[in-house]
Amino acid sequence: MTDAAVAGTPATDVLAALRARLGPRVDTSPHALDEARADKSGHASAGRPLAVVHAESVADVQITLRLAHETGTPVVTRGAGTGLAGGANAGPGEIALSVRRMDRVLEVRADDLLAVVEPGILNADLDARLAPHGVWWAPDPASRAISTVGGNIATDAGGLLCAKYGVVRDAVLGVDLVLADGELLRLGHRTVKGVTGLDLTSLVIGSEGTLGVVVGATLKLRRLVPGRPRTIAATFADVRTAALAASAVTAAGWQPAIMELLDAASLAAIHDLLGLAAPSPGAAQLTVQTDGPGAAGEAEAIAGVLRDAGGVVRVAADEAESELLLTVRRSMHPAMERLGTTLIEDVSVPRSAMPAMFDEIARIEAAYGLRIPTVCHAGDGNLHPNFVFDGPDVPPVVWDAADDLFRSALRLGGTLTGEHGIGVLKRRWLRDELGDAQWELQRRVKAAFDPTGILNPGKVFAP
Amino acid sequence: MTDAAVAGTPATDVLAALRARLGPRVDTSPHALDEARADKSGHASAGRPLAVVHAESVADVQITLRLAHETGTPVVTRGAGTGLAGGANAGPGEIALSVRRMDRVLEVRADDLLAVVEPGILNADLDARLAPHGVWWAPDPASRAISTVGGNIATDAGGLLCAKYGVVRDAVLGVDLVLADGELLRLGHRTVKGVTGLDLTSLVIGSEGTLGVVVGATLKLRRLVPGRPRTIAATFADVRTAALAASAVTAAGWQPAIMELLDAASLAAIHDLLGLAAPSPGAAQLTVQTDGPGAAGEAEAIAGVLRDAGGVVRVAADEAESELLLTVRRSMHPAMERLGTTLIEDVSVPRSAMPAMFDEIARIEAAYGLRIPTVCHAGDGNLHPNFVFDGPDVPPVVWDAADDLFRSALRLGGTLTGEHGIGVLKRRWLRDELGDAQWELQRRVKAAFDPTGILNPGKVFAP
Repeated sequence: MTDAAVAGTPATDVLAALRARLGPRVDTSPHALDEARADKSGHASAGRPLAVVHAESVADVQITLRLAHETGTPVVTRGAGTGLAGGANAGPGEIALSVRRMDRVLEVRADDLLAVVEPGILNADLDARLAPHGVWWAPDPASRAISTVGGNIATDAGGLLCAKYGVVRDAVLGVDLVLADGELLRLGHRTVKGVTGLDLTSLVIGSEGTLGVVVGATLKLRRLVPGRPRTIAATFADVRTAALAASAVTAAGWQPAIMELLDAASLAAIHDLLGLAAPSPGAAQLTVQTDGPGAAGEAEAIAGVLRDAGGVVRVAADEAESELLLTVRRSMHPAMERLGTTLIEDVSVPRSAMPAMFDEIARIEAAYGLRIPTVCHAGDGNLHPNFVFDGPDVPPVVWDAADDLFRSALRLGGTLTGEHGIGVLKRRWLRDELGDAQWELQRRVKAAFDPTGILNPGKVFAP
Repeated sequence: MTDAAVAGTPATDVLAALRARLGPRVDTSPHALDEARADKSGHASAGRPLAVVHAESVADVQITLRLAHETGTPVVTRGAGTGLAGGANAGPGEIALSVRRMDRVLEVRADDLLAVVEPGILNADLDARLAPHGVWWAPDPASRAISTVGGNIATDAGGLLCAKYGVVRDAVLGVDLVLADGELLRLGHRTVKGVTGLDLTSLVIGSEGTLGVVVGATLKLRRLVPGRPRTIAATFADVRTAALAASAVTAAGWQPAIMELLDAASLAAIHDLLGLAAPSPGAAQLTVQTDGPGAAGEAEAIAGVLRDAGGVVRVAADEAESELLLTVRRSMHPAMERLGTTLIEDVSVPRSAMPAMFDEIARIEAAYGLRIPTVCHAGDGNLHPNFVFDGPDVPPVVWDAADDLFRSALRLGGTLTGEHGIGVLKRRWLRDELGDAQWELQRRVKAAFDPTGILNPGKVFAP
């Protein structure tokens, strides 16, 4: 029995009504339904959704929501399906509402440093459209070539450049939101400052489809950064020394654009993938990039800090070598895929706690008999431990170890997700971090937007 | 009849209970009660509040809220009372809850670029405490010497440096919030990134005391900017040309730390106050400051843009001259006070719309027979038109003109308040900007935090 049936309308009637109102934009092909069950986390819903609606306009989204509201049918909004927490996975009785086809750039104003876009445009495609205007949108999740701006907004996505250039929340002025009953709201503003009423724009950012459907966004842009970036690779005897060196860079007052840390297992796997000489056993690596007019001087200064911290440091001589150094970092995911199935975690800690967090990961590896290669956005303290295992399903021991990892991060003043979100995979820890009173308050806020609970039910807030 | 009496508990009983629980921290002196009626907007409540509670701890705030909750007594939270929209004005039957005495700096972590503070500390006092650590908190409202961090958070305060360094929302990682029933929540995180659940921290910022009482904040700090800033003054034949020049600076890709515009009436009044030679009739002035390692080069480049835009440009030769140029801008408020009583407005428009907004102000001056000297944060499009009148009360014609001003700003893609907030003075325009559906949603969100409506009732959301 589906949720729609519980609400009194048989699933077949919902489907017929969807088809009557949206015609061929309602897709029930097995391929589409299966695709909508999963994201890039590896997790999939219990079964196929009712239908996939390929919305092509705000009106399509409103039609879908009105029908869902009338019939009590749950709606799961999707972009490109690149999430890592199962937040966009649609299951039995649910409508998967894809906004991927809504991918227009409606306005670019370089003079006002803003752009108005539809949610389905890919992050990288947007930047290609912005570059001729001399501007860019700073959020750069690792998935930027394949993830949508709407998905970036739904998860408050981060990336490599966040420490210097901010996350999605720092780069959105307003969103157009369709509520659970189909009503269209225009939240936020086109101005740099604006304090008219409550900031619902910020609330929607990172809400993972639980408050409404983002059908448009006014983005805050930056000027393209002038000059040639400089790239540094520094190798350390062990990951703790590398983490201390990264903390020392921030503590010394430097703000690189990128500062990435690969632990020994990650570095070895990448070298193997790329056919490079094996690194010394235990060696970990920092990759740092500086940009802007002072890039060269900053790179030299940071290289000095890294040498003082025990690093063997190489500043790339030219753009080709710079690309090569970054390729090592970018090869993390393909290198992990060769080791087995991975559960990519996402804890974040204060920068000074990075060495202690790596100690915890080593302890957890030993305690649970697991391999957990870890890459870290060391400029902001966001770690991605990759739990490696065999077979398609996450074994219980990995969840036990992940539980230990989350609690360790919280003890160190951190949070259980820095940029991936809660989705379904982390919802059982949400209440631990928020506390009971805040968890209840968050559910009341969710209900203020979605009183009947049809928007992405079961995500973020576990029943 | 007071609201407390309406809720069933006589005011005298509420007062007796407050005294029993909080002793001498309950202040009913006529001076304290009168002070709590007003802020710096010139507007005062209809009469004295029940009492002023001088909270000295989180526990004091919780005791006050629990009693208010039990007795249905409204609570108006106050810091230093420097608001400009009447948002902290307390009236008959209400408890004025002052957190001004909660002014400790609990933690400074230069390595993690964060500080944990109580809400009552003055913005300028905080920066004096941070400077020895080589860090600062960027929000710099003009009131920073006399306004509290808690008040800055309650209004999402802006200032002169926002275009380059952001507003309060960009500079707060978390807040500790006491809810209407006395429950203490810890919202947000200590990490750079964090997407665990809904972002209630951002929602509380700018909520003007309607959602809870901020009793602590984890602030995001920046490194002190190295080098000597450079200051430029540029004079233009008229305000429209000056506004076009300011837009041209942004459009040319420059990001000054400060870019302030004084219209002709403001400039003349300031010159008169300071005993400087009268400016040419109609002349308007831009004051621009660049900072950081590239300050000198940026100043030269911006000076070139301003000259091309028709300005007579002066780059300050040294720090003394730099201070002198900034003193002109800083003398706006005292200069206005000599002209009469002022209602300071706060519209914000996209930067490219600044010239058109100045045209609207000139039209409104003529149409209503008013003087409206205007200063503008030209780096971000936030204008402060000063409606000048005689006597203590805002005459109806000024409100009519302000109404015209707000509607003009909205037509130009702007907002009715960039940094002062809604309070009581702008609540009758809130619904026009938000639209009915969003206004209702915002009220539902408010109710999720404060179901019985005892937190700052009548503010922001007019009945």
